[in-house]
Amino acid sequence: MKNVSKIKWSTNLIPFSPCGDRFCLGYKRQYTIEEKIKAVSKIEGLQGVELHYPTMVNDKNVGKVKKILSDANLVCSLVTPSLSGEAKWMRGALTNSDKKLREEAVDRVKRAIDISRELKVNKINLWLGQEGYDYSFQTDYIEKWDMLIDAVKVCAMYNKDVKICLEYKLKEPRTHVFMGTVGKILFLIDMVNEENVGGNIDVGHALMAFENPAESVLLLYRKGKLFHIHLNDNYGDWDWDMIVGTNHVMEFIELIFWLDEIGYSGWYSFDQYPSRENSIKSIELSIKNLESLKMVVSKLDRSIIRAALKKGDYVTLLEAIRSAMEDF
Amino acid sequence: MKNVSKIKWSTNLIPFSPCGDRFCLGYKRQYTIEEKIKAVSKIEGLQGVELHYPTMVNDKNVGKVKKILSDANLVCSLVTPSLSGEAKWMRGALTNSDKKLREEAVDRVKRAIDISRELKVNKINLWLGQEGYDYSFQTDYIEKWDMLIDAVKVCAMYNKDVKICLEYKLKEPRTHVFMGTVGKILFLIDMVNEENVGGNIDVGHALMAFENPAESVLLLYRKGKLFHIHLNDNYGDWDWDMIVGTNHVMEFIELIFWLDEIGYSGWYSFDQYPSRENSIKSIELSIKNLESLKMVVSKLDRSIIRAALKKGDYVTLLEAIRSAMEDF
Amino acid sequence: MKNVSKIKWSTNLIPFSPCGDRFCLGYKRQYTIEEKIKAVSKIEGLQGVELHYPTMVNDKNVGKVKKILSDANLVCSLVTPSLSGEAKWMRGALTNSDKKLREEAVDRVKRAIDISRELKVNKINLWLGQEGYDYSFQTDYIEKWDMLIDAVKVCAMYNKDVKICLEYKLKEPRTHVFMGTVGKILFLIDMVNEENVGGNIDVGHALMAFENPAESVLLLYRKGKLFHIHLNDNYGDWDWDMIVGTNHVMEFIELIFWLDEIGYSGWYSFDQYPSRENSIKSIELSIKNLESLKMVVSKLDRSIIRAALKKGDYVTLLEAIRSAMEDF
Amino acid sequence: MKNVSKIKWSTNLIPFSPCGDRFCLGYKRQYTIEEKIKAVSKIEGLQGVELHYPTMVNDKNVGKVKKILSDANLVCSLVTPSLSGEAKWMRGALTNSDKKLREEAVDRVKRAIDISRELKVNKINLWLGQEGYDYSFQTDYIEKWDMLIDAVKVCAMYNKDVKICLEYKLKEPRTHVFMGTVGKILFLIDMVNEENVGGNIDVGHALMAFENPAESVLLLYRKGKLFHIHLNDNYGDWDWDMIVGTNHVMEFIELIFWLDEIGYSGWYSFDQYPSRENSIKSIELSIKNLESLKMVVSKLDRSIIRAALKKGDYVTLLEAIRSAMEDF
Repeated sequence: MKNVSKIKWSTNLIPFSPCGDRFCLGYKRQYTIEEKIKAVSKIEGLQGVELHYPTMVNDKNVGKVKKILSDANLVCSLVTPSLSGEAKWMRGALTNSDKKLREEAVDRVKRAIDISRELKVNKINLWLGQEGYDYSFQTDYIEKWDMLIDAVKVCAMYNKDVKICLEYKLKEPRTHVFMGTVGKILFLIDMVNEENVGGNIDVGHALMAFENPAESVLLLYRKGKLFHIHLNDNYGDWDWDMIVGTNHVMEFIELIFWLDEIGYSGWYSFDQYPSRENSIKSIELSIKNLESLKMVVSKLDRSIIRAALKKGDYVTLLEAIRSAMEDF
Repeated sequence: MKNVSKIKWSTNLIPFSPCGDRFCLGYKRQYTIEEKIKAVSKIEGLQGVELHYPTMVNDKNVGKVKKILSDANLVCSLVTPSLSGEAKWMRGALTNSDKKLREEAVDRVKRAIDISRELKVNKINLWLGQEGYDYSFQTDYIEKWDMLIDAVKVCAMYNKDVKICLEYKLKEPRTHVFMGTVGKILFLIDMVNEENVGGNIDVGHALMAFENPAESVLLLYRKGKLFHIHLNDNYGDWDWDMIVGTNHVMEFIELIFWLDEIGYSGWYSFDQYPSRENSIKSIELSIKNLESLKMVVSKLDRSIIRAALKKGDYVTLLEAIRSAMEDF
Repeated sequence: MKNVSKIKWSTNLIPFSPCGDRFCLGYKRQYTIEEKIKAVSKIEGLQGVELHYPTMVNDKNVGKVKKILSDANLVCSLVTPSLSGEAKWMRGALTNSDKKLREEAVDRVKRAIDISRELKVNKINLWLGQEGYDYSFQTDYIEKWDMLIDAVKVCAMYNKDVKICLEYKLKEPRTHVFMGTVGKILFLIDMVNEENVGGNIDVGHALMAFENPAESVLLLYRKGKLFHIHLNDNYGDWDWDMIVGTNHVMEFIELIFWLDEIGYSGWYSFDQYPSRENSIKSIELSIKNLESLKMVVSKLDRSIIRAALKKGDYVTLLEAIRSAMEDF
Repeated sequence: MKNVSKIKWSTNLIPFSPCGDRFCLGYKRQYTIEEKIKAVSKIEGLQGVELHYPTMVNDKNVGKVKKILSDANLVCSLVTPSLSGEAKWMRGALTNSDKKLREEAVDRVKRAIDISRELKVNKINLWLGQEGYDYSFQTDYIEKWDMLIDAVKVCAMYNKDVKICLEYKLKEPRTHVFMGTVGKILFLIDMVNEENVGGNIDVGHALMAFENPAESVLLLYRKGKLFHIHLNDNYGDWDWDMIVGTNHVMEFIELIFWLDEIGYSGWYSFDQYPSRENSIKSIELSIKNLESLKMVVSKLDRSIIRAALKKGDYVTLLEAIRSAMEDF
């Protein structure tokens, strides 16, 4: 049995927001940042916390947040500048046609970069949900992509010691989002061409674009650009942000296998949205499910697996996995 | 040229809500009920307004609302008891496992029925977005369907002079909604077996379930159960509630044709969600688009169309439609 | 540990056809009926075989087929009249606008009913892949549905001792198929109103229509109409007919649980399409996967499960399932 | 009114094949290459014909084919080496794990390149439907992508005067195809890094991947890599290869607008699959539909359109388009 390397678990704090939708503004109460961090500190094995700027951490409270984290024996795993939650940017933040709004957005990213330095994570996430369009024949695509490339470049050059993770999602809130698939992220990374710009694969987003998550992860890895991973589950149709392993099993076994093969040492960070379930338990169950699947992977005979993968020999692979599972 | 019968336009007032989503609570300001009704009164050709109970109309303000409607030369086209927007019903309103909550939901439906009498529309809508489930292996389906059938029956018997429209949608906010497709609505109508229970086809919901809207409408019509129609557009993947005719054209031509053929005299009522577009113009454009398509339908030679439809001869049908369009 | 009732395994013989597609006519060689039955007889635990009429069994060879089955210690589990594989019926068999072609199709069903009597299975399957449409505005839906209801009724009355299973599928080969969802089948069963007409749930078809298979099975069961089950897997997007348990796990655990709860004693019959995999192993792996999941179900504490299902308490359910899996 | 540049129409010859599917091997008879070319020569306005190597054109008949084309007043618009229709390559042609099979595939591409020289089109198409996988955990993605990049490079270097068009499609016949989206093609083009390697956008494939076709076209154009365009329509769910304009209208208006804006002078080539419709009429109707939409585009006031596109102002855009349509 091979010892699959120990996993570094992390989560964002969205499960401790009201988790509402367009019909019901909130299913849960709002928590303070202290309460949120304290809540996740109870989750066994969890070491990292993603923070949103400025809604969770900001220039005013960053000292306090550092203290809370340290008291809770947690570190910051990623800083995400909030660029999709304000009405002013409803037609784009980094690609808004209004230059002033665009600059305001770039400025927010820069402040998030500064905060990420202060929190010693040196990594920010760019998820750009409002950069896209709703209707066909609504957009000057070339101009918008130029703006996107330029803005990411400006942010990347602001501080080359801070990594920028591009997180793609096919849709929502816009019906079509520019940074929609792993391929488009690879294109954007190629166009920006800065060392500190890479990708953040959200497994649920990959599934929603009918990608195989392991393939998407490996394409970024092959380019030296696998910067971060978000974990959650869904039915392949929409970004439901569900408990991991409830819909997809084989994909997560495969993902764990390959992350181990390539020696991935980064975070496994949850991005779930448990509107109707207990937030802490939802994360705990995801960890337990993945730890179980890690055990299955650890029992696989790597030489058999690698040989079968080379041939695309699925029957042998499935028999090996089943056998590892039964041996549980 | 046949005179396609004049269309009775209606809308609900959701476009005059903040139109937010789970990332941004609102893209627009909140309007008072007076403002909302006044706003739609400016839309040329619009005669009907759908009202939600108790968020828009309720026991306290019903007199005032009647006055506002009358002043605006509008009538109420439907009353919808709100059953999906409160956290208490997040695991179901009419099918909540807590008897007290279930009864509270039934009671709300009854009050909406009373209000619909007072507003002389005598018709309510049941859209049950929380009655469903998120995960597989979360539900006792038989018990829930029994509850659903019973609750609809109780509501139907409360006042047989008031029609109950069942509006189906495949998903959202739950990942799976019990009343999900036209077939399930037909099943529910059959099980409840009360004369005043029928269906409300939301065209966008039909498209989202990969139904052809005209087929769904005609199946309800064949059962004598076509009670109401909601209009909006989307990409077939999600309930985006877009301007009509922006994504689907042939489906709306077909729908207008068949509604004319069967002599439908009910409302054509909009259910749109224009987060980033002007609310009034969004409805006006839907009307204009549909009036254009109605013109196309009016130019079709019905005997040619009917003969081709009998044979499924699409080439002839498409040529006839194109010719009617060019003749525009 | 509860003893989940022993499963009666069956398969159709499509895995022993060339398994081609529109780009490649065949990936495997054609087998004779003897070879096909001999092949499946090697599969451990398999007892039943579905046969297509007249392509596999027909008036000429029925005696021989009975002998082959008996020699192989197998029984016939279902007879399926072939109504979708000939160009003449490309615009519908039972609903073709040409009366002569329609009667020919009804006649084929009747012959299949006779054969099913002779093979002592007394059950036929109606999967009507050509009854539908490709384009919007191509179809007189009411006339077609009338034809469909009439034809099924005529077939049902031909021999009331033979059960007719209606198998729905959303699409393929037509872009839209009339018998598309469980709800539409329930509607059709209601309209035909004959005791010997019920449903055949193909799990892959349910998934493809974004149904939860257990819910669909239970809706048919509640009506006393659960006649047959087809098993295979896919990604929820298309009828890929894959090895069971490779994409969906929780859904199959749930399905086994409920089939046991309702005392289902019918066939678990495979309908797979292993273009590139070994046909026998593909079925064997499906059986093994399902037997493993049956073991998990047998370890569940039914009182805990039932209580949690009543409340929709997913966290408890998932913990119970995980615990049963780890205990494996 | 601006004069939108005259369109160069082309088609492949697949509509004159039997157009079968996995249930029915063929709905039409097989035609000889002479008959096929003669058939399309009757289509008004059509100038180009795509040919498959070696099934339609090959070393033996290339002289004869040149003569037939010339007699029919047609030119060859593209040569496509057939790499997806033979069982031997069912697990990949250019990425088959068997080196000999891989080399055989590369050799076929080289012969197609030679033929394309002889036919003076100097352009071939690579659509790689078998390069992908069916199941998760079946593939060594990095090795396969390396093979893919290498093989395309070898083909590109074989004759730098011949352009290689990479045509992506998300799925079918494999459940997942490597060259699946516009983004992955851009990645592949970047990796191969040869001047004569670019993209072929099949509009139906773009729609099936939830791309906006105009955006995909413009991303390739921005890279100087827009080499070819395939036209057909579908419901966004599957590659149905339907008559153009029957499902999508706004997307085609937008596409024509942008192709005109960027001065695209290449082919508009059809790739349809009319199983149940007249093959010639299906192409003629696509041309007529697109010519109508071109007329609409020609009536648009470009300065208004460009200004509205810059702002994402959809209401203005839709009003302009409607007005151009009514003016028809």
